[in-house]
Amino acid sequence: MNEVPKQTTKVAALAGGVGGAKLAHGLQMALEPGALSVVVNTADDMTLWGLHISPDVDTVMYTLAGVANRELGWGIEGETWRNTEMMARYGRDPWFRLGDMDLATHILRTEMLRDGRTLTEVTADLAGALGVPSLILPMCDERVETLVSTEAGNLPFQEYFVQRRHADRVIGFTFRGIVDSVPTPQVLDTLEAAEAIIFCPSNPFVSTGPILAVPGMREAIEAAPAPRVGVSPIVGGAALKGPAADMLDALGHEVSPYGVALLYRGLLDGFVIDREDEAHSERIRELGMEVLVTGTVMKSDEDRERLARDVLGFALGLKERRGA
Amino acid sequence: MNEVPKQTTKVAALAGGVGGAKLAHGLQMALEPGALSVVVNTADDMTLWGLHISPDVDTVMYTLAGVANRELGWGIEGETWRNTEMMARYGRDPWFRLGDMDLATHILRTEMLRDGRTLTEVTADLAGALGVPSLILPMCDERVETLVSTEAGNLPFQEYFVQRRHADRVIGFTFRGIVDSVPTPQVLDTLEAAEAIIFCPSNPFVSTGPILAVPGMREAIEAAPAPRVGVSPIVGGAALKGPAADMLDALGHEVSPYGVALLYRGLLDGFVIDREDEAHSERIRELGMEVLVTGTVMKSDEDRERLARDVLGFALGLKERRGA
Repeated sequence: MNEVPKQTTKVAALAGGVGGAKLAHGLQMALEPGALSVVVNTADDMTLWGLHISPDVDTVMYTLAGVANRELGWGIEGETWRNTEMMARYGRDPWFRLGDMDLATHILRTEMLRDGRTLTEVTADLAGALGVPSLILPMCDERVETLVSTEAGNLPFQEYFVQRRHADRVIGFTFRGIVDSVPTPQVLDTLEAAEAIIFCPSNPFVSTGPILAVPGMREAIEAAPAPRVGVSPIVGGAALKGPAADMLDALGHEVSPYGVALLYRGLLDGFVIDREDEAHSERIRELGMEVLVTGTVMKSDEDRERLARDVLGFALGLKERRGA
Repeated sequence: MNEVPKQTTKVAALAGGVGGAKLAHGLQMALEPGALSVVVNTADDMTLWGLHISPDVDTVMYTLAGVANRELGWGIEGETWRNTEMMARYGRDPWFRLGDMDLATHILRTEMLRDGRTLTEVTADLAGALGVPSLILPMCDERVETLVSTEAGNLPFQEYFVQRRHADRVIGFTFRGIVDSVPTPQVLDTLEAAEAIIFCPSNPFVSTGPILAVPGMREAIEAAPAPRVGVSPIVGGAALKGPAADMLDALGHEVSPYGVALLYRGLLDGFVIDREDEAHSERIRELGMEVLVTGTVMKSDEDRERLARDVLGFALGLKERRGA
């Protein structure tokens, strides 16, 4: 089943932050340079001190550039915080810490956007300078903002996630501005040309969710010829990172790979779950998806590449089946 | 002659960068908190990476806050350069280095200016947060840009000064935007209320020059009731810092305290020169200025305060003479 993929297979991955970035990194390692395009959620983007911050784009970019801070789970390795200390001296609450190196990204992005360049162009410039061999594609060039509806009110995503440490019970989500967004031409081209479309193990509500909510995106994915495979962000009833499990629970979904697969019913041809969750295989197959059971926890670069190869082999096997 | 000034004497100082900031610091030490206002050149301001940088305002602010980097002569003590390293990684030429802490100043200033606040308000916010007990007043709230005419063409000031290390022969200066600038109400109030107006030992062409070129500024200084005293930025035929001596020479002026005093003829009531230049006293007196000969080189905080007291005593003595 796990045939070795061609290194030149064109792959489109959909990703949010850390978990998605890890699999994207694995895919990049498994493929020829330039074969991977990552469509990244931008609904977490925020403006802080006048700077345009794209947390998921940056996490993917730093991870694919090999400079991600693995200890923190965000930002750049070896980061320092002198600027944040100075901000505090100026009486500014540094609840969202921007590292000294990381700031260069936000400053240059903000400058280039003000000069009229698109987020897609800006991201290509920055990622190219860092030597990233893959295409990192913001889901859209318009500004979209995730608001998390909680019992404490509608909270901008980073306020919910970072400032309040995702402790508020979630009622729902609003993607402000999404109706006026469109998939970029680069995203549409990538989906059209892909030989496999991979939904990385990202939060289905606030990472993959906004990507799929861009008007025309779901249709473009459905119209694409490639097989579509997702990797569960839930392992053993918990999210490996972030609030995905809490959100599933709060919104009345089953906190399991099955609960996630259900959200993607009709959209995915295959779903990858951890060995720990093998018992869910049959129910997921009943949703009309093939299932691959493998190790999905990525603790090392080797884990990332191995999972990527498993996922690619699985997806390409589905392709042959569909083609048959 | 050097009577001890009242600590509550209201003093307005005109200053550019390092030399001016040092004397302003001396004045601040010699006076009660709040008694000093420093009118600062802003024609060196520049935009780098979309950030509004006010080099002279910052030098004065950091110096008066006691956080200036004495080793470098600019920026903040204990500064680090991780951001600059990252900018270089992004392929950006860091010819104008912005320290990690210093960046907080530029980021917040830029944000507040974009929010519609004036440079005067922004400066008060930042300087207040750093605990500066004096008023730091930009000469105007409009954008003015010093262009240095050289044999290599018209160069923006920081390009001439930092990038090309003031090596180009100077032909003249243009203060772009100056005709549309006006002294701020705060500057006019300060000049009106001052009991002494001190021209700090700053470059007469590119520091004091733009301040005096703001339409209405010279008239406001002339109409102010306070005695006006300048301190020579030239000692022994050389500038203590920067290109003042080269500029005097290139533009056909005498490279001496007399050469500087000549530029201020009709505007100053008194001029302070170094003991080394005592021989120039008589010629400067012939320009209609009283002369104070003292030690003007400021190597320590004690030097700054001692010179400040000398200058204040000299100015207040002139006041009594004028009042008589």
